[in-house]
Amino acid sequence: MPCHEIEFGMFPLEEEEEEGRQLDANGEQSTDPTRFPDGALRLRNPHISEMEQDILYHLALGSGSHDLQEMFSDVRFVCMGGTPKRMEQFAYYIMDEIGYKLPAGTTLLDISFQSYRYSMYKVGPVLCFSHGMGIPSVGILLHEVIKLMYHAKCRDPIFFRLGTCGGIGIEGGNLVISESAVDGLLQPYLELPVLGQMQRRPAVLDRQLAHDLKNLRREDDPFTVTVGKTMCTYDFYEGQGRLDGAFCDYTEEDKLAFLRKIHAENVVNMEMESLCFAALCHHAGVRGAVVCVTLLNRLHGDQVSTPKEVLNKWQEYPQMLVARYIKKALGLPVAVPQRSHPQV
Amino acid sequence: MPCHEIEFGMFPLEEEEEEGRQLDANGEQSTDPTRFPDGALRLRNPHISEMEQDILYHLALGSGSHDLQEMFSDVRFVCMGGTPKRMEQFAYYIMDEIGYKLPAGTTLLDISFQSYRYSMYKVGPVLCFSHGMGIPSVGILLHEVIKLMYHAKCRDPIFFRLGTCGGIGIEGGNLVISESAVDGLLQPYLELPVLGQMQRRPAVLDRQLAHDLKNLRREDDPFTVTVGKTMCTYDFYEGQGRLDGAFCDYTEEDKLAFLRKIHAENVVNMEMESLCFAALCHHAGVRGAVVCVTLLNRLHGDQVSTPKEVLNKWQEYPQMLVARYIKKALGLPVAVPQRSHPQV
Repeated sequence: MPCHEIEFGMFPLEEEEEEGRQLDANGEQSTDPTRFPDGALRLRNPHISEMEQDILYHLALGSGSHDLQEMFSDVRFVCMGGTPKRMEQFAYYIMDEIGYKLPAGTTLLDISFQSYRYSMYKVGPVLCFSHGMGIPSVGILLHEVIKLMYHAKCRDPIFFRLGTCGGIGIEGGNLVISESAVDGLLQPYLELPVLGQMQRRPAVLDRQLAHDLKNLRREDDPFTVTVGKTMCTYDFYEGQGRLDGAFCDYTEEDKLAFLRKIHAENVVNMEMESLCFAALCHHAGVRGAVVCVTLLNRLHGDQVSTPKEVLNKWQEYPQMLVARYIKKALGLPVAVPQRSHPQV
Repeated sequence: MPCHEIEFGMFPLEEEEEEGRQLDANGEQSTDPTRFPDGALRLRNPHISEMEQDILYHLALGSGSHDLQEMFSDVRFVCMGGTPKRMEQFAYYIMDEIGYKLPAGTTLLDISFQSYRYSMYKVGPVLCFSHGMGIPSVGILLHEVIKLMYHAKCRDPIFFRLGTCGGIGIEGGNLVISESAVDGLLQPYLELPVLGQMQRRPAVLDRQLAHDLKNLRREDDPFTVTVGKTMCTYDFYEGQGRLDGAFCDYTEEDKLAFLRKIHAENVVNMEMESLCFAALCHHAGVRGAVVCVTLLNRLHGDQVSTPKEVLNKWQEYPQMLVARYIKKALGLPVAVPQRSHPQV
């Protein structure tokens, strides 16, 4: 088992909330459907606690086969992004940033490697996942991660999505933090048919968290940070009004008119997971933030033609901001990494 | 470059179609929006041919950076499934089945490894992809694969999805071939907002191909084959009426009533990609089939608790059926693999 170099002093981020949780206005135990009094997640599903075991199929974990509390109870931050490679890099990056120490002769292991679906790395209080592309993929992951937090009795975890996006009126290489998410029809909720009936869940994100993150930008950062509305689509090509898919029935002018219209509605970027991330975090009572780097300004084009090494550099920007937030929350100095010498 | 051991004699699978394509009723060149007279794919997007180069971003390929025609023009079958691992295994399996020979001292390479999104293996006329989970993920892949077929001038490619699913009234370890796909509201089309307007594309699959595949089942196979309607959902938990997600507002009785209702509407399985696969193949004029193995009978439960090794065995069943189809189409003996000695 990895050991801690530092005993992290966790401080409550919202003290009012913390107090409010313990006792309600009448001095009774809180009946928050998403929390036990100690801050551990309560599930909005009465069936799980009645099950003999819960198999987290797409994570290759289970409440019967693993001691989830022993493995994960110290988790406070869940970070997710599209590709396994990026999230593995983030895991090693955050390890240095927070000074988390592995025993000599050990390295990180993809905990979910047997599922061949998601990758999952644990760095002390930080759990890192790849979520694949699109709402269904991130949705399966969120269901299982929320259940994992419940089984492990994690207290008040904060979820981050670190992603890439197309900017609307924002040049490539800058950050957008979503203040809320809308679908391709500008509707601010996730629609999902459940038992044949359309269900709608508000795609609400934590505004305080978004602004706290924005305030962590430093003057000398090579990127700007915009807090704005994110359009989340079910497709990368026609769904985002691109001209370069296998099909296209509209003109460049049609596309630009649409992009200008949504820009006028305060939409500043487009990606493919935020609607579900926001809706499921909100329904679970989990504070969540979506921090994406723009790969291009869609008002100027469709194709991602920036060189790979530049894109790779840009993809570190959301990681830098989230790392600063985590360091601050852990009571560590924000400006510098906690370790500069290699562990391997 | 890999070389062919056998010069495959491709035979046209539907001669009527082949003839009809060359000349229309007036003896004029066909105006099929999806085909050139030689069977190569015509794109339903006028913009692509005007572009200087087309970057297939999620495949890590491009028409400017790669000679796509040299690399892929011999492709006749495109096989896709969820995980990279399964599709890598399929690539080696189909190599033995069709007797495709690699030069000694070479092995297969994941062509798209630099994208970290999809995996892609080429075995002569067979191209194998992982598509991830859910409609957005398979949709991005299909847009780029259809464009790849166009750039490479592939003639009449056939697309297969080899997947896993929940059976409705069918026990685990049996095959379902989709005759059509519906969404969670039993609607037989893919809905996608495009430039702020809801677009609907019929989720039609090739019935002849489905029945040809079914007829390749042998008496001694350990699985049954059902041709039926597939419900394709945007979520694995609530979207499929499961009781074991992070959220659940309904009872076991509600769930069973829903499953029985859709079973009465001829839905025999549920998965998460067929609607998009069917709609995009149909719109591109590509013959497509969805062959899935059931992992459980949803009328009896929600959790996939079958041992991993049994699941792995079951996941070979769609591969067996599709391999027989490909061998038959290539004029090879169907009953036996074409090679039994190892290449490495």
